[in-house]
Amino acid sequence: MTAVKAYAAQNATTPLAPFIFERRDPLPTDVQIEILYCGVCHSDVHQVRNEWGGSIYPMVPGHEIVGRVTKVGGEVKNFTVGDLAGVGCFVDSCRTCPSCLANEEQYCDTGMVGTYNGRDKEGNPTYGGYSTRIVVDEKYCLHISEALPIEGVAPLLCAGITTYSPLRHWKIGKGHKVAVVGLGGLGHMAVKFAASFGADVTVLSTSKSKEQDALNLGAHHFAVTTDPETMKNLQGHFDFILSTISARHDYNPYLNLLTLNGTMVVVGVPPQPSVVNAFSLIGKRRSIAGSLIGGIKETQEMLDYCAENGIVSDVEVIKASEVNEAYERMLKGDVRYRFVIDIASLK
Amino acid sequence: MTAVKAYAAQNATTPLAPFIFERRDPLPTDVQIEILYCGVCHSDVHQVRNEWGGSIYPMVPGHEIVGRVTKVGGEVKNFTVGDLAGVGCFVDSCRTCPSCLANEEQYCDTGMVGTYNGRDKEGNPTYGGYSTRIVVDEKYCLHISEALPIEGVAPLLCAGITTYSPLRHWKIGKGHKVAVVGLGGLGHMAVKFAASFGADVTVLSTSKSKEQDALNLGAHHFAVTTDPETMKNLQGHFDFILSTISARHDYNPYLNLLTLNGTMVVVGVPPQPSVVNAFSLIGKRRSIAGSLIGGIKETQEMLDYCAENGIVSDVEVIKASEVNEAYERMLKGDVRYRFVIDIASLK
Repeated sequence: MTAVKAYAAQNATTPLAPFIFERRDPLPTDVQIEILYCGVCHSDVHQVRNEWGGSIYPMVPGHEIVGRVTKVGGEVKNFTVGDLAGVGCFVDSCRTCPSCLANEEQYCDTGMVGTYNGRDKEGNPTYGGYSTRIVVDEKYCLHISEALPIEGVAPLLCAGITTYSPLRHWKIGKGHKVAVVGLGGLGHMAVKFAASFGADVTVLSTSKSKEQDALNLGAHHFAVTTDPETMKNLQGHFDFILSTISARHDYNPYLNLLTLNGTMVVVGVPPQPSVVNAFSLIGKRRSIAGSLIGGIKETQEMLDYCAENGIVSDVEVIKASEVNEAYERMLKGDVRYRFVIDIASLK
Repeated sequence: MTAVKAYAAQNATTPLAPFIFERRDPLPTDVQIEILYCGVCHSDVHQVRNEWGGSIYPMVPGHEIVGRVTKVGGEVKNFTVGDLAGVGCFVDSCRTCPSCLANEEQYCDTGMVGTYNGRDKEGNPTYGGYSTRIVVDEKYCLHISEALPIEGVAPLLCAGITTYSPLRHWKIGKGHKVAVVGLGGLGHMAVKFAASFGADVTVLSTSKSKEQDALNLGAHHFAVTTDPETMKNLQGHFDFILSTISARHDYNPYLNLLTLNGTMVVVGVPPQPSVVNAFSLIGKRRSIAGSLIGGIKETQEMLDYCAENGIVSDVEVIKASEVNEAYERMLKGDVRYRFVIDIASLK
């Protein structure tokens, strides 16, 4: 066991603060990673504040982890000391259920083991990437290219795969009209991927102020959802809508923008259930679906795609001591588009 | 113009009563049908009572119409006097939009012309099948086999196609576990079709009393949704759920019964929007979709399939004068499974 420096929440209400805990030494199939950068995800705030219930304290958040391998167990085959490596939202799963066998561990029948705020197979709490080191079974580690700025790669491990996976699953590409709702950490990655896949991309936002940014990110169009005329003109327009909104909202105005057989995929989790009007679905055989991050295989595919196509997240690098302020700014939408903690600031 | 006897609602609150109105003489592409039977659909009640808004009075309901051709226009090619013919939920559409060109007139961009409670292209109100005669363009008429009892065929025009179409669209067949929620007019047809297509069919009902009926209709299993243990055991069990419920209900307990990538299709329209918990969708990449009747081509395919496979609706034949009582009984679920008006009782 070795002591690891971290930032942690001790309960749902007080700010995150320095914390020291112990990580295991690498088991035979483990990779030990010295963390370089860790992204700040909206779900970190939800879990720190126990907004989804069941939070485990002390909590070391963070599941957008990039670092360098410093030690490997004797049976590790695919990582060597000195490699860049990444860890996303989970660090284990049952490995035997149909989802795990289909490389979709995120849908594991018995539940994936979260990178933090979870419990490993021995029942010990898991601690995330707001820390100097992590030890993870190699099956749940990702290879990271040396070609990209790694602070911009970190958010790909959650924000990236969360948007890449549904765009791939629903086979989005040339000829599709795609809307991205919300231009935050997830939304800005959705725009980059959808545009890269060849779709015609519109950003839907409550604020006109994001228009130039949306176009800079690769969107072809921008529409303000608070303008009734705009919303009326876009009725039945989109083949696919990816909604990244995690604030409470009504799905129906968006559903009505879908064309015949169109699908809206939600990746944000509002704190309360949203209402759906059956007419909105029935009138054009529309669907609303959900999608959860992606499996290890697909996450690697996404990282490789990003390396080949020069895609990274737009980030603002902060010190660990700035994370509480970053949470407040993120909740106000005041970040373009992801905070990433420079873990050197923890040492 | 000829006078036609009918049963009509004069407003949203008083009982239906005898009514006489005029139908046009057949235009060159029209078929004139002497109606023999007309099914009573739950949506008749919604519209008679203006529960969806915008009702047009006087209203002659009825869109599950079977009768015999008594006259055809000079340009009619596919029907001759003496043929059995059917009319479903719509009698016209724009004929030029992508949906119409794709034989999915029910999703017409400018809106199909409802068989009743609609307005034709001249702006005149349309009157439905609780009447002795109807005149419809042949493109919107269906061929009816002489091989089946036609009183049992009438409900196929709405209850049949409404359940057949989504089962076909989502390619349900052998190897699929299908749940049908609600065992009424739509539900009993869904059971017959899903079983006929080779799926493993479970009826989900609030009432244990329907178990034997469900099995008689072809279901392989029956589950009572008010039993928490049963619902728990069925979590993640079904590939496809067809919900025929048009009463207010919570979608989430049903969504949680879907397997990874499972789809729930709603064909009933609750009076209020229903809530959807994003977690229910996201956790297993589930979808909820809507489906609206079917196009003329698919309705004909369904009718032909029924004729080949001996499938009809289970009906209780009533006189027109019994329709108000039938509405009350239908709302209580006291019909196995569709009321059909013997139009001879109107003459």
